[in-house]
Amino acid sequence: MALDRLIEAIAKKQNPTAAGLDPKLEYIPDFIKEKAFGRCGKTLEGAAAAILEFNRGLIDALCEIVPAVKPQCAYYEMYGWQGMKALHDTIAYAREKGLFVITDGKRNDIGSTMQAYATAHLGKTEVAGESAAAFGADALTVNGYLGSDGIQPLLDVCRMEDKGIFVLAKTSNPSSDEVQNQLLEGGEPLYETMGQYCEKWGKGLSGKYGYSGVGAVVGATWPEQLGELRGMLTHTFFLVPGYGAQGGTAEDVAMAFDKNGLGAVINAARSIMCAWQKQNAAPEDYAKAAAQEAEKMRDSILRGIGRIRL
Amino acid sequence: MALDRLIEAIAKKQNPTAAGLDPKLEYIPDFIKEKAFGRCGKTLEGAAAAILEFNRGLIDALCEIVPAVKPQCAYYEMYGWQGMKALHDTIAYAREKGLFVITDGKRNDIGSTMQAYATAHLGKTEVAGESAAAFGADALTVNGYLGSDGIQPLLDVCRMEDKGIFVLAKTSNPSSDEVQNQLLEGGEPLYETMGQYCEKWGKGLSGKYGYSGVGAVVGATWPEQLGELRGMLTHTFFLVPGYGAQGGTAEDVAMAFDKNGLGAVINAARSIMCAWQKQNAAPEDYAKAAAQEAEKMRDSILRGIGRIRL
Repeated sequence: MALDRLIEAIAKKQNPTAAGLDPKLEYIPDFIKEKAFGRCGKTLEGAAAAILEFNRGLIDALCEIVPAVKPQCAYYEMYGWQGMKALHDTIAYAREKGLFVITDGKRNDIGSTMQAYATAHLGKTEVAGESAAAFGADALTVNGYLGSDGIQPLLDVCRMEDKGIFVLAKTSNPSSDEVQNQLLEGGEPLYETMGQYCEKWGKGLSGKYGYSGVGAVVGATWPEQLGELRGMLTHTFFLVPGYGAQGGTAEDVAMAFDKNGLGAVINAARSIMCAWQKQNAAPEDYAKAAAQEAEKMRDSILRGIGRIRL
Repeated sequence: MALDRLIEAIAKKQNPTAAGLDPKLEYIPDFIKEKAFGRCGKTLEGAAAAILEFNRGLIDALCEIVPAVKPQCAYYEMYGWQGMKALHDTIAYAREKGLFVITDGKRNDIGSTMQAYATAHLGKTEVAGESAAAFGADALTVNGYLGSDGIQPLLDVCRMEDKGIFVLAKTSNPSSDEVQNQLLEGGEPLYETMGQYCEKWGKGLSGKYGYSGVGAVVGATWPEQLGELRGMLTHTFFLVPGYGAQGGTAEDVAMAFDKNGLGAVINAARSIMCAWQKQNAAPEDYAKAAAQEAEKMRDSILRGIGRIRL
């Protein structure tokens, strides 16, 4: 099962973190943008070219340090199909470099349509007998508001293609409590029910290390809920956003791990991508600064959980 | 406000329906596919070319009949960035022909990221002082599971660019009850709370005809809930999927309208796109068959609600 590949990479690199690839143009050094705009103009195509080169530099610098990257679809979609081509090329490059790729798309729809999203991001698209991977990630984030028939096509693709999903349970943003903390008739909050669905949906996708192919997204900004859900959802691996720029600390995320230091992958995007700006490094050293920041993040988190054991 | 443009088009054409553009390859006549594959091969690019030509034919035939089209992102995304280019070109062509375009993306994320989605689908993307519309729809469907801070960037773009959103309340699929019908502590189902949020989020986007720029998605397959929500959410316009192939009837969707025949736009995709197959029409007449089916749908619905008055 796909999350086994992620878990093995985490243990091998002794690093339970992912680098978010959310490339806003303002994060990208001028020398990269000038080259791209010179070639393609100040256009969506030019922006996409800059993003791809920036990402390649980051991936080269990070691929021996982190086990996974998490590109956020929205930052590619805002540059149109040209940006989506940069997403495709970024995913292909990261996988070539041995990284596990989690596409953060939070996709959701009814079953027949979810089949198309599952194919788009995790499967292979058939065209008159030929087939090609449209985006080809290892895992996809999804939103479970539509219930089981919206999730089933993903489970089928996960089984056939050795892929995984992460379902939103408790997101990192301040107003996540408005809907997700609504108490249900039985007194439990909605995010807990969503977590229980992850356990249920994961039943047919058991992995070697106790975790299924269906993970949950739980924000680093909610340490209490992280700990509560870790205790309750024993087969559900967590993708934990919100570390760093959003306020989650190493102490907060320690709650997400089991006694072997497994059970979660912690994501940071801005703090790694913008490390060169924060450190006042030379723009040419942006990738080196990102690598240093990723090592710092890894070391901080490992101090709280000790050695990761399979 | 953007939904005023939709409402005016509905009244002018005396037709409260939208044609879904969810172009699976199996819906497309062979002569279109053969031409596209001949030019681009049996590739994602070839599939995207076939989709675009199919859509253009549909749009030409439907643009005097329906006020709106609803392309479903997933069916473009599954053909990669090449498919996303077909989505862009489809939207541009439909708007040229005077149609209101609702991109069905069900996007959702935290505020900073939702800003990127809002820009992608409804706004203009800035690249070093130049700007371009990445996809340029008139409205976008979104998922409110993340709460207000994930919706706010959309409201800002709606106000500035005269656009609208539709938030998922009660979706058309069979398992929508698993999460959406969960009863909250006060005894009301979650979909009702989501509907109340639509009323709240729409407050700053009031329109001329009583409906705000924040609509709700409520499935035709749940007539009881449609009626209940219509009575309760007096400023919220409904996008109603699930008519036709999914089982919703003209009688079911009559519940979605107010006494002036306003308040909802009913979407059908498969029954219109595949009309030529159902009618055993010549493949060359696929667009004509779609137009006939769209007129039939309009007439069935109008029989239940009478003349639409502004």
